[in-house]
Amino acid sequence: MAEPSIVGVDWGTSSLRACLLGPDSAVLAERQSEDGILKVEGGAFAPVLRRELAALEAPAGLPIVLSGMITSRQGWHECPYLACPADAKALANALHRVTEPGLGPLHFVTGLEYASPDGLPDVMRGEETQIIGQDDLAPGEIVVLPGTHSKWVAVEEGRIMRFRTWMTGEVFAVLKGHSILGRLMRDAPADAAGFARGVAAGLEGPGLLGRLFSARTLPLTGRLAETAVADYLSGLLIGTEIAEAVAAERPSGVVVVGSDTLTGRYGKALDIAGLRHRPGRSQAAARGQWRIARAAGLVR
Amino acid sequence: MAEPSIVGVDWGTSSLRACLLGPDSAVLAERQSEDGILKVEGGAFAPVLRRELAALEAPAGLPIVLSGMITSRQGWHECPYLACPADAKALANALHRVTEPGLGPLHFVTGLEYASPDGLPDVMRGEETQIIGQDDLAPGEIVVLPGTHSKWVAVEEGRIMRFRTWMTGEVFAVLKGHSILGRLMRDAPADAAGFARGVAAGLEGPGLLGRLFSARTLPLTGRLAETAVADYLSGLLIGTEIAEAVAAERPSGVVVVGSDTLTGRYGKALDIAGLRHRPGRSQAAARGQWRIARAAGLVR
Repeated sequence: MAEPSIVGVDWGTSSLRACLLGPDSAVLAERQSEDGILKVEGGAFAPVLRRELAALEAPAGLPIVLSGMITSRQGWHECPYLACPADAKALANALHRVTEPGLGPLHFVTGLEYASPDGLPDVMRGEETQIIGQDDLAPGEIVVLPGTHSKWVAVEEGRIMRFRTWMTGEVFAVLKGHSILGRLMRDAPADAAGFARGVAAGLEGPGLLGRLFSARTLPLTGRLAETAVADYLSGLLIGTEIAEAVAAERPSGVVVVGSDTLTGRYGKALDIAGLRHRPGRSQAAARGQWRIARAAGLVR
Repeated sequence: MAEPSIVGVDWGTSSLRACLLGPDSAVLAERQSEDGILKVEGGAFAPVLRRELAALEAPAGLPIVLSGMITSRQGWHECPYLACPADAKALANALHRVTEPGLGPLHFVTGLEYASPDGLPDVMRGEETQIIGQDDLAPGEIVVLPGTHSKWVAVEEGRIMRFRTWMTGEVFAVLKGHSILGRLMRDAPADAAGFARGVAAGLEGPGLLGRLFSARTLPLTGRLAETAVADYLSGLLIGTEIAEAVAAERPSGVVVVGSDTLTGRYGKALDIAGLRHRPGRSQAAARGQWRIARAAGLVR
């Protein structure tokens, strides 16, 4: 095995992923755990990390680069947001260095804030590192990180210029779980036709709030099977997200960074929208951590 | 007291309102109860109604006109939706007549369905009667019934032509109660400035899903007091509703039918949008029931 040069830790709300990283960000070993920051009690982050590093057999004293919600107020070490535009070098300059007994030097990656000209600011924590990991973007390509809080990010020559958050995943979850729309949903295998129909309705616009009720009226009037309603609603939300984001950014294509399930779902919606798309680099967080570490002179 | 000619019953999900109606829909006596259809067990609607009529001292045998969710599957007597366009006469022709021991003849008002050309149907139950009660509309005026499921309704010469539902109230409730947006909200007296700021953001567009996160980032970055967040979100949703609905209908003005609280809130938002508005006729359901009864020949 090649010699590891740093440990990369992607520590989010509900999970933790630690990697030994070698030359050119190669992942030499990795560990995944469900000890997200909300599960760690009394601020006992160091013992959790020591346990993970022991399991990885990480050499003592290796620099550790951490990104994600671990730098939020609920995390280990709160870092203020850095302003856009920001590239790997700016994030490297903004690393928060902390020492902790029995651990190599800790380097926390700050999140980013974008002061939108419309007066509505936006923020991210963790995604900035995954975006820095996408170092093969073509001009005009937008990076999309789908999920609970889906983000569309404009990058120019390695600099994160601006971004906006769509609350797609969370809105889906609360509508399914707590609104009248959940009542006509019956659990079932994925319904591709229902999803596509929702995407089309979302893309057509002219707005989500006046379209949502169709996820009730279509099954109520026998025009959509109850087993297809959840996928219809998911498609409606993702289609709306794409329509709104494309109107704002007019991208030449999008690079989708996320889990296979989510990138698959977004890929289908982007096909329907007629927008060119490709998956992003895998191990995005690890590669971003490595590139920020390199810009900071921690690795070569 | 003038002689009552019918009983009007507006029976919704969470409340019931029964009125003795006299000449020209005058409300001679009324009773309100919280025995909405979801509270009545085992289909025992008749005893509840008998109790209310006794309290109203309604003359025996008076025709009873019922509207609202009482005609839904969960209600007393399910009535299929009638298609738009529909006026008082069409609703009168579609009355469902039912007899019940110890009660005057029951006349259930059916709800309406609108088959939108975009393939997304819409439905209402109860609002059709309140709209029929608005018999002083000017050409180009749209009737707005704000609430959990806010409706914008186009009426031409007394005929309900088309309508659409915005899930504004329900989306607000689920986002406040169950999403991350509720976490930075602190209960406080109404914040008019926060509401106005939300309305402006909603009116500006270009879409709700990519704007919602501002209800988190504004307080998170110290740009909005936590005591103003709930009103900001409410304004954002109502502003979005108005922007979407105005784009679709281009009304010359709107007539707002609802409680004082809701009409006040919508009035402020419509002022910001620069749209002419006025309150609708009061006792809207009772007047609608009376007009439908008259079209059916039950009263003169």
